[in-house]
Amino acid sequence: MDAGRLQQVIGYRFAQPAMLAQALTHRSHGTAHNERLEFLGDSILNFVVAAELFIRFSDAREGELSRLRANLVRQEALHHIAQGLCLGECLRLGEGELKSGGHTRPSILADALEALFGAIFLDGGFAAAQQTILRLYAGALSEVNAKASGKDPKTMLQELLQARHNALPKYVVVSTSGAAHDQRFEVECVIPELSLRTIGSGSSRRVAEQQAARRACEQLRK
Amino acid sequence: MDAGRLQQVIGYRFAQPAMLAQALTHRSHGTAHNERLEFLGDSILNFVVAAELFIRFSDAREGELSRLRANLVRQEALHHIAQGLCLGECLRLGEGELKSGGHTRPSILADALEALFGAIFLDGGFAAAQQTILRLYAGALSEVNAKASGKDPKTMLQELLQARHNALPKYVVVSTSGAAHDQRFEVECVIPELSLRTIGSGSSRRVAEQQAARRACEQLRK
Repeated sequence: MDAGRLQQVIGYRFAQPAMLAQALTHRSHGTAHNERLEFLGDSILNFVVAAELFIRFSDAREGELSRLRANLVRQEALHHIAQGLCLGECLRLGEGELKSGGHTRPSILADALEALFGAIFLDGGFAAAQQTILRLYAGALSEVNAKASGKDPKTMLQELLQARHNALPKYVVVSTSGAAHDQRFEVECVIPELSLRTIGSGSSRRVAEQQAARRACEQLRK
Repeated sequence: MDAGRLQQVIGYRFAQPAMLAQALTHRSHGTAHNERLEFLGDSILNFVVAAELFIRFSDAREGELSRLRANLVRQEALHHIAQGLCLGECLRLGEGELKSGGHTRPSILADALEALFGAIFLDGGFAAAQQTILRLYAGALSEVNAKASGKDPKTMLQELLQARHNALPKYVVVSTSGAAHDQRFEVECVIPELSLRTIGSGSSRRVAEQQAARRACEQLRK
């Protein structure tokens, strides 16, 4: 993937292409690398996510907002977004990093994504950086919304599948065991279109279904 | 001091005075307190200071920028600025905090200043918050500039006094002791206008003068 395609994917076109190039350059590659941009990008990301959470969750207390933000800006979350953009294909790495698979290293990808946010701020100003961050974080933010609203796993799964235009899942009781006052249910959640099957168990059919749905949600998010 | 005067001092007038009132309300006072605004303000402060340092110190590496920022956004620095604004006089505190001197507690003042930054962002947008932060941080930022440029204490003291329109200091050797190859100098730095006298000592007159000047700078900044 080239830089032009990346700009399409993130929805922002650089006025200064050298700024984009620097954001994509790991320190192993040369002197004009992305470490300073990462510092800047990390701080704008923290602020933009804080402001968004502040507005979305008008009832959440400071501690809850901090916790939600920490989840959204941690390396794992950044890495996930960077993967979705195929950012690794655009990175400029030194010989050693190239050979040892630096293109797929979570820390390198997460840092480069932060550097990209910093570069957009320098190139296009605060509003441009904010819009890009919120666009790339739309999925993660709507998941936070769903979790914070206390939706149960079956509802979450249904909404995830609808968003992907997939048919709804089927729940099948696979087995029951135990005496009447101590029954055990095993339920399978089946999504034929995606060849996905997950198993849940519990003391009632409902509990087993929710567990199977939660596991299906986890599989879908991978 | 009332809210109108505070807005003059910070150079920002609120379109929504209720937002300002909330920023100045400690949680001990009631429900519409400033903790959520503090979360928001902390993140915009971190970002604005990061961006400013990024621009001012184009040669500094990421680690140095982080260190400089940490010094500028820590409680002590915020408390110092809040004191300069007489922010304590505007705070709304609960009975208990009032009695135990909450108006002068560094953590309460620092938190309220951060909340104020958050409130300005919500009321007036990013540019308004950024301008206010940079205005209130002008002194602290220029000190960082001076330190980073490696100026010696005597030069620093001279500049500090010139900025305050005070006369320059005098350096007086108070005593010398020891044999020729192991002499010890004691020098007094005198600023008559401010009734300030500090002592420095060292193996040469120059070293002793620099130490006396450093102590005078510290006194002036208090």
